Amino acid sequence: MATLKVPATVPPPEEDCEQLRKAFAGWGTNEALIIQILAHRNAAQRKLIRETYAATYGEDLLKDLDSELSSDFQRAVLLWTLDPCERDAYLANEATKRLTASNWVIMEIACTRSSHDLFLVRKAYHARYKRSLEEDVSYHTTGDFRKLLVPLVSALRYEGDEVNTMLAKSEAKILHEKICDKAYNHDELIRILTTRSKSQINATLNQYNNQFGNAINKDLKADPEDDYLTLLRATVKCLTCPEKYFEKTLRLAINKLGTDERALTRVVVTQAEVNMQRIKEEYHKRNSVPLVRAIAGDTSGDYEKMLLALIGHEEA
Amino acid sequence: MATLKVPATVPPPEEDCEQLRKAFAGWGTNEALIIQILAHRNAAQRKLIRETYAATYGEDLLKDLDSELSSDFQRAVLLWTLDPCERDAYLANEATKRLTASNWVIMEIACTRSSHDLFLVRKAYHARYKRSLEEDVSYHTTGDFRKLLVPLVSALRYEGDEVNTMLAKSEAKILHEKICDKAYNHDELIRILTTRSKSQINATLNQYNNQFGNAINKDLKADPEDDYLTLLRATVKCLTCPEKYFEKTLRLAINKLGTDERALTRVVVTQAEVNMQRIKEEYHKRNSVPLVRAIAGDTSGDYEKMLLALIGHEEA
Repeated sequence: MATLKVPATVPPPEEDCEQLRKAFAGWGTNEALIIQILAHRNAAQRKLIRETYAATYGEDLLKDLDSELSSDFQRAVLLWTLDPCERDAYLANEATKRLTASNWVIMEIACTRSSHDLFLVRKAYHARYKRSLEEDVSYHTTGDFRKLLVPLVSALRYEGDEVNTMLAKSEAKILHEKICDKAYNHDELIRILTTRSKSQINATLNQYNNQFGNAINKDLKADPEDDYLTLLRATVKCLTCPEKYFEKTLRLAINKLGTDERALTRVVVTQAEVNMQRIKEEYHKRNSVPLVRAIAGDTSGDYEKMLLALIGHEEA
Repeated sequence: MATLKVPATVPPPEEDCEQLRKAFAGWGTNEALIIQILAHRNAAQRKLIRETYAATYGEDLLKDLDSELSSDFQRAVLLWTLDPCERDAYLANEATKRLTASNWVIMEIACTRSSHDLFLVRKAYHARYKRSLEEDVSYHTTGDFRKLLVPLVSALRYEGDEVNTMLAKSEAKILHEKICDKAYNHDELIRILTTRSKSQINATLNQYNNQFGNAINKDLKADPEDDYLTLLRATVKCLTCPEKYFEKTLRLAINKLGTDERALTRVVVTQAEVNMQRIKEEYHKRNSVPLVRAIAGDTSGDYEKMLLALIGHEEA
């Protein structure tokens, strides 16, 4: 469930554009007005605002936001204003660049979006970068990371609920064998995680737990310092319980010495319209403090206000 | 260019259905009438006929064709009548089954269809088999074949004309190094062939030819008996000059001791609406005999008539 709050009656896009234009006018910027508008419009409405803005003023709303705003607030507003699939394409592209490289972000986008949404991300990637997502991911990664990430971003998983229990049993056994052999990059292990439907993977991991007495992620913790193993555990989590994955990502981002604003922004902005309600619940349960209070305690100013608005609170 | 001939005025689908119904009625079947109708309707028209047939008679046209027809003619009509993406899903699925396994068919579908069409095939595969194409391909293949085929069927290649010449030069060098080392299954070689756009691959292979004096497929002929190398050469051909690939497939199918009807049918049926005109030209050039005569000499009866109609001739 989303946390985004859209007013019962939304003004026509022309009016929103006019207000945004006012917010940019003269010395200084009216950040509160920008939040009041953009942080309370859904993807389709924001798209319409961008189109109307371009048609009315002959300028790109994103460029104007870019020049009017700064730092973490700027990044949050820009990412939020983008279409979800364009935003994911942008984040994924950033994640393949040397200075902002992140196998995590690539994996997160590949594993937590629906098959159709991931397809739209790949199309948006073509349009924006004139290359394919898998092309850049495979070019910029190597070894085990490439072996895992390329099929993850290329997958078009079946999304039905059908589960083959025999298969789940036999593949649970394969996973267990490979893990016992410490063959964490084995073709078969990667095949199962990158091609099976999420329902089937869930069934397989339940069988794993039943047959071998441990959750698979416990057995994948042999070396907690190993980056590939850490990514593999996160992959399992994204595929089977994304809200827990996002809760942990928020927790680590907030608890860090010096907040990890990039991760915080990414999770809030990409999930506000999707599953943020569940993530908030998970967060509260796991940390004994509401997410809104945690974010308010760790951020400030317009950036704080923007994030809180997106998770459904006007104030902490 | 297509070879399919659609009449200037096409009867309404109701009339086509009525005629087909007549062709099935009583003892025996009017095969000529079936060819006259179905072999002269494009994909959208055939789809409409199937829908009208189901709505009017409460029966599936494909099932009726299946029970009325037999052997090679039956297979050709059934495959032809399917929607192109459904047909490819069907052929790809067959190609993952033990008795009809074919790495070639999988590669051919993955490499000669447009990115969007391959996406539609993958969607049709979900709908029909409740699994994903890459899931079945990776489950039913192993080793080097899997390593090549899974990314091929999962790709959503960029389709623009943009070419990066620097990249083409450097990747030509990588390909040459790997081939010199006989590392035909090397990650980098597979990455380049499975993720780059067809335009980019073409540029890279031109650079290869310029820098090293041989076409890559000549250098990939080290061991003509090696099945993986043969598949790799066919992959290169499908990506860069599909009409030559199809010409060769037809040539081998026809020149075999005992025609390879499966291959012959597959190429004619899948290409009649796409690129058959070019393939016919290539065939004539390479074999000094028109394709129509070659097919007429090697096939007979309704099967022959069906194939000839699809390649644009009513008789040899």
